[in-house]
Amino acid sequence: MEGYNYLLSLCVILLSTKIFSILSRRAQLPQVVGALMAGLFFGPAVLGAITNHFFGVQFCLMPSALLSRMAELGVIVIMFTAGMETNLDELKASGTVGFVVALTGVILPLGMGAGLMYLFDENATFASAVFVGAVLTATSVSITVETLKELGKMSTKVGNTILAAALIDDILGLICLTLITGIAGEEVNLVLVMVKIVCFFMFVGAAGIIYYKYMVWSDRVQAERNLRRYPVIGFAFCLFMAWAAESLFGVADIIGAFAAGMIIALSPKGQYIASKFDTIAYLLLTPVFFANIGLEVVLPSMSYELIIFTAALVAVSIISKLGGCGVGAMLCRFDKHQSYQIGLGMVCRGEVALIVAKKGMAMNLISDAYLGPIIIMIIVCTIITPIFLKRAFEGQVDVAGDSVFEEAFMMTEQADEITEDLFERKLLLDMRKQQYIA
Amino acid sequence: MEGYNYLLSLCVILLSTKIFSILSRRAQLPQVVGALMAGLFFGPAVLGAITNHFFGVQFCLMPSALLSRMAELGVIVIMFTAGMETNLDELKASGTVGFVVALTGVILPLGMGAGLMYLFDENATFASAVFVGAVLTATSVSITVETLKELGKMSTKVGNTILAAALIDDILGLICLTLITGIAGEEVNLVLVMVKIVCFFMFVGAAGIIYYKYMVWSDRVQAERNLRRYPVIGFAFCLFMAWAAESLFGVADIIGAFAAGMIIALSPKGQYIASKFDTIAYLLLTPVFFANIGLEVVLPSMSYELIIFTAALVAVSIISKLGGCGVGAMLCRFDKHQSYQIGLGMVCRGEVALIVAKKGMAMNLISDAYLGPIIIMIIVCTIITPIFLKRAFEGQVDVAGDSVFEEAFMMTEQADEITEDLFERKLLLDMRKQQYIA
Repeated sequence: MEGYNYLLSLCVILLSTKIFSILSRRAQLPQVVGALMAGLFFGPAVLGAITNHFFGVQFCLMPSALLSRMAELGVIVIMFTAGMETNLDELKASGTVGFVVALTGVILPLGMGAGLMYLFDENATFASAVFVGAVLTATSVSITVETLKELGKMSTKVGNTILAAALIDDILGLICLTLITGIAGEEVNLVLVMVKIVCFFMFVGAAGIIYYKYMVWSDRVQAERNLRRYPVIGFAFCLFMAWAAESLFGVADIIGAFAAGMIIALSPKGQYIASKFDTIAYLLLTPVFFANIGLEVVLPSMSYELIIFTAALVAVSIISKLGGCGVGAMLCRFDKHQSYQIGLGMVCRGEVALIVAKKGMAMNLISDAYLGPIIIMIIVCTIITPIFLKRAFEGQVDVAGDSVFEEAFMMTEQADEITEDLFERKLLLDMRKQQYIA
Repeated sequence: MEGYNYLLSLCVILLSTKIFSILSRRAQLPQVVGALMAGLFFGPAVLGAITNHFFGVQFCLMPSALLSRMAELGVIVIMFTAGMETNLDELKASGTVGFVVALTGVILPLGMGAGLMYLFDENATFASAVFVGAVLTATSVSITVETLKELGKMSTKVGNTILAAALIDDILGLICLTLITGIAGEEVNLVLVMVKIVCFFMFVGAAGIIYYKYMVWSDRVQAERNLRRYPVIGFAFCLFMAWAAESLFGVADIIGAFAAGMIIALSPKGQYIASKFDTIAYLLLTPVFFANIGLEVVLPSMSYELIIFTAALVAVSIISKLGGCGVGAMLCRFDKHQSYQIGLGMVCRGEVALIVAKKGMAMNLISDAYLGPIIIMIIVCTIITPIFLKRAFEGQVDVAGDSVFEEAFMMTEQADEITEDLFERKLLLDMRKQQYIA
């Protein structure tokens, strides 16, 4: 009955992420950290290694194709809801700042990473050094977004700057990767990549106009109908945009999902649609996303030298991103504390770092031995980002109260929506009753 | 970028099931029929065959491991919510009736199916004839449940009888399959199967008591905390019970999910938990479940003789189940119309018929050529059940109005829950504020 074990895996993921989240909240840490630790603990990295050591079998949650797909859907939904909660005007206002922060936050890690490689490996070529630098450039914003949501800081000026910078960072990262693979000798066309990026933004604009016009029309002619169709259409739109971003334009799927969220928030029924994704996220997809990060961690055994390199890489990855983005923020006249918050929010790395590294290995520019250090760098960055981010925001206001207040506000809105919905249904019911009597 | 096509598949599934549902409602058919047709139409059976004929490539939605897993989760959630909406006392009251209906609804299809096989194949052995009969015994209740929900007839006496009969049918089917494989010479232990079934019910009882006690305790000590944990715990419980049913006791996973739903409905916070699964069902899992049924249909080419057999099989499958269950219901003093409704509700067949057939083929009792007729039988039964079920219920009351009224009632309840939740949060907020000031 192997085929049914995924049910048990999902059960363990839901319970363990919830329990670890509650524990980490009691320890004054963000709940996100608990969810990450749950996957790490119940996966092959810890529980699997322990059972393997003592009983000779890996008795633990195992990564699977289903879980990783559901995790992908999870991060798409996280970025989609982030898009729906983002105010376009505020994001636009953060655009220039975001560009500066993203740029400095790419240059410094690139330089410092390359420097580190030269320091440790005397035989390092220019291309291989730059590749190690490139591994450190890509910020993974989803953990930061979830942490900011939890702290109720998503729609602050700092939150918007982080968001803008992270989105631009993704695009800079794409250009950077193209340039480097070009330097390393592979046939790549930078112009084509740039054209695709420009086309993507035109596509987002066109899709936005079409979706908006459709919703205005739909809202007018079908006002009294069943409301369920709107979240379904909204989600389908999100999935389409995520697919189109990756498959047609070579841009990250989460950028497509984020754009879809922003478009929906600006269109009729946006609030109603947004209110529906909360449940699907926390009840299934978000726990799987966080647990899966930990599950996919496999630690290779490392030599003494490599352990030192790992420590250096972790330090460089944190300092260069924090420093690069922090300096960028200061250049844009944020104060010291805010710059620190922005820098911190950008420290988190994710699967893009792994993808870049694997590309480098495939091109024989980086030795396979560096996979271990890079994995550890990602784990450390992923776990410390939310922890320090929470601390950084805690100095200012009563965070817990604030977040409760925001939640209460959201719930009032939802109750309003439901009352409205109820009212519409009652009208419909009355109509039908009259028809029935007549 | 093949790896991202599942996003597009999900997008097409969401949109097409929604559009087809709306169309089928306009045609006065149940929405479930539309969702089923969407998968059939956009899958390999229709669109794939057309594009293959004209362009030489199958350009359509393709079944995949991800979709079928998500469909499995979908049917688990459907049965879980059905369990949460079921009144235990009413189901108990329908127990004896359900047993009679299920029994007559197994005996008649078994006999008529075997008779049909003797009629068409002169060389049919006793074992192979009984096997074809066994293919016709298993009712697939999920389509009926979804249709009854849509019509607002789940908690009627007829609805409860169908539910009870279908649950008992699953267990009778299991015993029946064990007996037949025994007759056919394979080593099976009927006593073990029966012991496992009894153990399963004891296990459900024990799990129910533990869950109930935990929730009572949790409700007392953690009343003012975040409410999100309850749906998460409930869902984890559902997944665990579904896994345990299949893996530990050899009972269908949906029976485990249904039992979990009933236990949750009887425990504290049951209403709140139930209110949360609506979104996750209609926004992702239910559409995938219905579309996937159509997607997995692959029609083999058939000889003239086999087409006649198919027609006969379809007729026998409908008449035998309708007649068998209908007579059972009449024996239990339902009136003619109610007996017809109950019989109809049991006509639907599903993947169990396929599983039994494949088992028979593996044992060389049924020729592989019969796979086509059995698939067509399942499709026809699946599509006509909701259509006729809706008609059968329409004679009595204003169905649409009734269902809208039920929905409105449910929404009032939800609004109440949210107001309560909001109130709790405000209390918490006030507390924190005072702490903050102090």
